[in-house]
Amino acid sequence: MSAVPHLTFDVSRLGMIEGHLVVPKGADCEALSLPVISLNKGEGPRLLITGGCHGDELEGPIVARRLVDWLLETQTCGRVVIVPVLNPPAVQASSRNTPIDGLNLNRVFPGRADGSVTERIANAVSRLLLPMADTIFDLHSFGPMWEFPPATTTHPLADPDLMARTIRMAEAFKLPMTMVWEHPETPGMLDLVVQSQGKVFVCAELGGGTVSAEGLAIYEAGLRNALIALGLVEGEAEYPTFRHKKSTQILETQRSSDELKSPASGIFEPRCSVLDNVHEGDLIGILHPMGSLSTDAIDLRAPEMCIVYAIRSGAYVNINEGVALLARPLKR
Amino acid sequence: MSAVPHLTFDVSRLGMIEGHLVVPKGADCEALSLPVISLNKGEGPRLLITGGCHGDELEGPIVARRLVDWLLETQTCGRVVIVPVLNPPAVQASSRNTPIDGLNLNRVFPGRADGSVTERIANAVSRLLLPMADTIFDLHSFGPMWEFPPATTTHPLADPDLMARTIRMAEAFKLPMTMVWEHPETPGMLDLVVQSQGKVFVCAELGGGTVSAEGLAIYEAGLRNALIALGLVEGEAEYPTFRHKKSTQILETQRSSDELKSPASGIFEPRCSVLDNVHEGDLIGILHPMGSLSTDAIDLRAPEMCIVYAIRSGAYVNINEGVALLARPLKR
Repeated sequence: MSAVPHLTFDVSRLGMIEGHLVVPKGADCEALSLPVISLNKGEGPRLLITGGCHGDELEGPIVARRLVDWLLETQTCGRVVIVPVLNPPAVQASSRNTPIDGLNLNRVFPGRADGSVTERIANAVSRLLLPMADTIFDLHSFGPMWEFPPATTTHPLADPDLMARTIRMAEAFKLPMTMVWEHPETPGMLDLVVQSQGKVFVCAELGGGTVSAEGLAIYEAGLRNALIALGLVEGEAEYPTFRHKKSTQILETQRSSDELKSPASGIFEPRCSVLDNVHEGDLIGILHPMGSLSTDAIDLRAPEMCIVYAIRSGAYVNINEGVALLARPLKR
Repeated sequence: MSAVPHLTFDVSRLGMIEGHLVVPKGADCEALSLPVISLNKGEGPRLLITGGCHGDELEGPIVARRLVDWLLETQTCGRVVIVPVLNPPAVQASSRNTPIDGLNLNRVFPGRADGSVTERIANAVSRLLLPMADTIFDLHSFGPMWEFPPATTTHPLADPDLMARTIRMAEAFKLPMTMVWEHPETPGMLDLVVQSQGKVFVCAELGGGTVSAEGLAIYEAGLRNALIALGLVEGEAEYPTFRHKKSTQILETQRSSDELKSPASGIFEPRCSVLDNVHEGDLIGILHPMGSLSTDAIDLRAPEMCIVYAIRSGAYVNINEGVALLARPLKR
């Protein structure tokens, strides 16, 4: 058995090929075979679409698979490589991190050949998949415990040309929200590795809460819009309908300081919806301590005029747990 | 310390009283104090509203609390006793069952005074709360992993008079769905204890998936409608808007045989929404086995003309796990 990661097919072959990315076995588990589809129409843009980095975000794996049939009918040039599930053990466990070693795949890039299974997956992706593409779409979501609009996201980038190209690509999805979020430097993220190679990386955060047929249709429309914008497919993009609107807005936020945290442990009651515009003092949610009743409820109010772009599902939360995330229109 | 469950207030007192139901300590944990609100305007219907039986169904605890302020302004007669959280340890753990003894509170009624904590809660509720009411609303939901419409539910009852009164009460919520479901006899459910006393019991299943501000507004409207129908409050009921419609339908189902199960383990992709009418052969969802790609996807189709009343969130499911629940209009 080979101890290096490898693909079971020749990526230069034209047409549709189904194969696998093999991640070698290690001390902690057997080899993994990640299904990969290559749709190759020759010259043109080279795109990689990945999903299932976190095992409790299933929008990506489902939508990535859906694109295959559509691309078979519509693709005119270039190559699209699709890996619906980057982290099969995490998906099978419905857990964010890999259950075998407890690691978050999106914190260990570029990975290690002799590391634990999560690091070996990252290593295989970095060595074999990333070199095949100029543009990468990584499909995430906010997970089941948040209300979150279908969105593409990116971070401020030092290179102004790469920043402009990335934002242009993110906006081409025409999802209800395009988000530029700044958060504390987090080593090991896939985007950092890709961007350090000068490539365009767009992270799609395909909603939160229940993964529904309605939501999936919106996410698929966003991906199709992006493939049309890249020139892989001929056609016209359309704004998907979300909350009765067909529109997009580009927002910015500081992930840490724009987080509304629970002032106590108790039951969080959401009082607004995602993409609601709120003014200073508007009610965003209520925290109900458990041991007593209405007299002790704590109102959580907007600190300033802003847009609520994510809000926790009503649930028991601990003190200092984030319950709402706030943003403002991007100043270009 | 008293070893019997007790209330910290006199339920015959008029006006609003906040107090506690004390569940005695046992070998497994200290005494619990469950917040209780009594709103007493004298003669009239006697209603008990309970929520938080299962710790991952937070719609009930939130909506139950919300009613207090409204009742203070609007109640004209009778008594409403509200217990937002029946099972505080389960709510704090966000788990269906009580984490301390692993028991499902809705399977241990009428409980045991010398049992484990879940049995002691059931015992306290049976002895002290149930005798105070003629009508009981128990607020549940389908939990975070299902799409489910706001609904009231009941079971076929042997007593035709009680059945008629129960259905009348369930329909008075005017939620999008009123469900009569038959499932295998399950001992220990709260409804069975209440119904054996000849009282009206309505289980509200307040949706599934994310607990959102939008959903909570629908559930609150349903509860208000029911309180108006009971005569506790004067006013006019209104159909809440759900999926662009203001309507209700009454359905019936056999919980076990009307369940569409996953034919294999893999990623379930929902292809329809709750309350969709489907014909025989219509696509309800797709099961994607993990190890391979599109060629092995399994279509899950409607076995006959029916209404999809619940559908799983897109997620990894095991073989034989339920992924959709089907119903038909009730034959009266």
